[in-house]
Amino acid sequence: MTAYSDLMAFQRETEALAQVMGRLGWDQETMMPSGAAAQRAEEMGALETVLHARRTDQRLGDWLEHAVAPDDVAAANLRHIRRSFERSRRVPARLASELARVTSRAQGIWAEARANEDVAGFLPILSEVVALRREEGAALGEGADVYDALLEGYEPGTTSSELTAMFTALRPRLVALRDRVLSAPEPAQLTGIFPEEGQMILADVCARAFGYDFTRGRLDKAVHPFSSGSGLDVRITTRTNPADPFNCIYSTIHEVGHATYEQGIDSAHFLTPLGQGASMGVHESQSRIYENQLGRSRAFTGWLYGRMRDIFGDFGIDGEDAFYRAINRVSPGFIRTEADEVQYNLHVLLRFDLEQALMRGDLQVQELEAAWNDRFLADFGRPVDRPSHGLLQDVHWSVGLFGYFPTYSLGNVYAGCLHDAMRRALPDLDGDLARGDASGAVQWLRDRLQRHGGLREPRDTVADAIGGGPSEGPLLDYLETKFGSLYLA
Amino acid sequence: MTAYSDLMAFQRETEALAQVMGRLGWDQETMMPSGAAAQRAEEMGALETVLHARRTDQRLGDWLEHAVAPDDVAAANLRHIRRSFERSRRVPARLASELARVTSRAQGIWAEARANEDVAGFLPILSEVVALRREEGAALGEGADVYDALLEGYEPGTTSSELTAMFTALRPRLVALRDRVLSAPEPAQLTGIFPEEGQMILADVCARAFGYDFTRGRLDKAVHPFSSGSGLDVRITTRTNPADPFNCIYSTIHEVGHATYEQGIDSAHFLTPLGQGASMGVHESQSRIYENQLGRSRAFTGWLYGRMRDIFGDFGIDGEDAFYRAINRVSPGFIRTEADEVQYNLHVLLRFDLEQALMRGDLQVQELEAAWNDRFLADFGRPVDRPSHGLLQDVHWSVGLFGYFPTYSLGNVYAGCLHDAMRRALPDLDGDLARGDASGAVQWLRDRLQRHGGLREPRDTVADAIGGGPSEGPLLDYLETKFGSLYLA
Repeated sequence: MTAYSDLMAFQRETEALAQVMGRLGWDQETMMPSGAAAQRAEEMGALETVLHARRTDQRLGDWLEHAVAPDDVAAANLRHIRRSFERSRRVPARLASELARVTSRAQGIWAEARANEDVAGFLPILSEVVALRREEGAALGEGADVYDALLEGYEPGTTSSELTAMFTALRPRLVALRDRVLSAPEPAQLTGIFPEEGQMILADVCARAFGYDFTRGRLDKAVHPFSSGSGLDVRITTRTNPADPFNCIYSTIHEVGHATYEQGIDSAHFLTPLGQGASMGVHESQSRIYENQLGRSRAFTGWLYGRMRDIFGDFGIDGEDAFYRAINRVSPGFIRTEADEVQYNLHVLLRFDLEQALMRGDLQVQELEAAWNDRFLADFGRPVDRPSHGLLQDVHWSVGLFGYFPTYSLGNVYAGCLHDAMRRALPDLDGDLARGDASGAVQWLRDRLQRHGGLREPRDTVADAIGGGPSEGPLLDYLETKFGSLYLA
Repeated sequence: MTAYSDLMAFQRETEALAQVMGRLGWDQETMMPSGAAAQRAEEMGALETVLHARRTDQRLGDWLEHAVAPDDVAAANLRHIRRSFERSRRVPARLASELARVTSRAQGIWAEARANEDVAGFLPILSEVVALRREEGAALGEGADVYDALLEGYEPGTTSSELTAMFTALRPRLVALRDRVLSAPEPAQLTGIFPEEGQMILADVCARAFGYDFTRGRLDKAVHPFSSGSGLDVRITTRTNPADPFNCIYSTIHEVGHATYEQGIDSAHFLTPLGQGASMGVHESQSRIYENQLGRSRAFTGWLYGRMRDIFGDFGIDGEDAFYRAINRVSPGFIRTEADEVQYNLHVLLRFDLEQALMRGDLQVQELEAAWNDRFLADFGRPVDRPSHGLLQDVHWSVGLFGYFPTYSLGNVYAGCLHDAMRRALPDLDGDLARGDASGAVQWLRDRLQRHGGLREPRDTVADAIGGGPSEGPLLDYLETKFGSLYLA
């Protein structure tokens, strides 16, 4: 027991320091004065050095060797710490620091290239990032698949072949649904100007409707919406655009999904490896089920219509049904982050296939733009019109996030399964949502999934919640039913 | 050179981590959700553990032994690092952790005792704190005076005998001035309600007038005004009370004094030991000269009167002269933090003498209340009416801050000297201040003092700025002239 309790005392400090890093990131995006960026980089760099040293500290190896797990919780803690320790030690310090240096530079070059539609200006640094991440993947994998080794960092216990099976089943039905929907008449679109103060009031109302605990968090504006922190301090941000209140509302509900997951974890796991969401994919399942299956449902949007009218008066959409259609409007577009439920996963699948090929050496960086554009034409039925609508649109690859994209679609698949099970368990859910009351849904997710944090492996976390292995079927059925009735009825 | 550059690279990270601690403190007072306090304590505790380990790291001893200083700046850096290292190592880890534990507990007990006017409830824990700090002072002093060893932590290079000489000269003239002023007719007092939004606009206007750089800082509301951070990120807070806009304005100007000092330090000292104010006393000289000699001057208050009327309309004070008198109103009071320029230092001198006696064992904690009340009667001419107006009023002793109080009065003495020299160098200063332009004064302070940061010892920092050794004379002359003309003319 001594080795285990020493280990956990050390780990608790590491978790607390990791939370501090989260505070700095939050502050940077919300409160930090513009002229403080150079200092913030030094502050975060120094803290990262401390964290890296702790994560590779040789004492961890000794404690792990002698620690005995008295119960499931302890076994799970040891599993997390061992995985982190072994992964951290496999990456040579030289490579880790090179990656930090190059990706930091690459992010700036990417932003400039995107602004200038300049693919050629981005590819050289992307090649460097790709080479370094392939090297890292090889070190992490120790002979196993490079891409799976990277994926493991975001979605432990999940392999690319499992995802490929899932996504291969998704793609044709999504392409077909997209085709049919976009051939149907377009519904009315929201127009007009919606004052930002009113949007923030709505954001607050929606956050509360979805169970966000403001005594352990706060809601601010930022350029990019995000959720930050675990435990007793989980903060979210949203953004406002006078022409697009839906963006503010649904960004907020999405982040509330992430945040209430963290807030819903059993306090026994506070500042332990279990005190955070199980994986990126499981996290995304929470944000997406809040945002889409619940937040964009006919029942909830009916209630939301009333709140919109309370704040903005008559805004030109006549009735709850038209409002529901406007919110769930599907239109041709190039940008993943703006995509509707029907098309979103097609964007992700495209990136998943391309990044696997890049990591495995089956696709060269010089061939990437052509590959992107070919695939986009095949799945979306029209050509990419400019690089910022194509391969320059996402920041992810510039900062080395290979293996991250598929967790978005995995999260949607999980959300589909959870929604299916939740509907069976809560027959009156729509009645509640129609009154703006998502507490039943939130409580169901909390009891079945959120409270366990990282206790179980990600896939098992979802499987236990739904009572069986997750699959893509429920998501597809849900989408075909919903958008069938919206567009094809 | 290698030992020196290795040392400075290590130190730079330590400085950056210390800045992170400052961010957490700022966040706690301004942004942190109420329910996050327990987590924040863990975060700051973990970071403090990291900082303590770095400040006592044996490598520092090795580097210090071999480092060669190529110039004055390097010599000053080595002086600071050596002082910190030696002080940190003299305090046994057991004692440091006991002090942290006991003072953390004592702060809560003090707050409750103050609320309940319960001296007896506070004295037992105060005895513990006193005993621990005496033990620490003995360890730090290694045979030298216990109080001086503690004072050295706040005001390096200054001894209690120097301060005693200065304060012994201050006290009778201040007591006499207080007597004469309080015998004169009272000037008109500000009354009415001043909306808090208007106060915050004024706070912003005043901060800008005194050169606060908002691109490297920000102004928020908090329960207690403070300045936090160094380098490129120096944030201030203020507070608002609808009945008392002067509190908001002068708290802001005071904190701007601290903050612009930090902002005015030569960027060459960024994230080095020289990149912060020279000491608590020198810091206080900046905050007090901004607040009092400049901010409460007839010239500046004349301009401020116009800004108050712009925002609040006619608020019942008729004309600049009456406004100046209202701002500089002297009235009987018990509380140090609310004291005017005439009485403030008498509060400090009382504490200085009592805390020296406590630390040297010449006064027992059980005798403290009687000693406080006797001294208060002697210097303020009336008895303390309740403990929260007496020895329970300040948090300082509960958190172990013995040796800190005198830096407040030392700062006022330094401010008097700097003001005297500044007036000689800037004959048109009042003309500028009457237009709300403090830039000449700010620039003079920056050139003569602020930019050097910790390059020189605190007293030398002031002596170099004023061209000679500092003394209490200029402060006394200034106070007698100002309040003589206000009350006795």
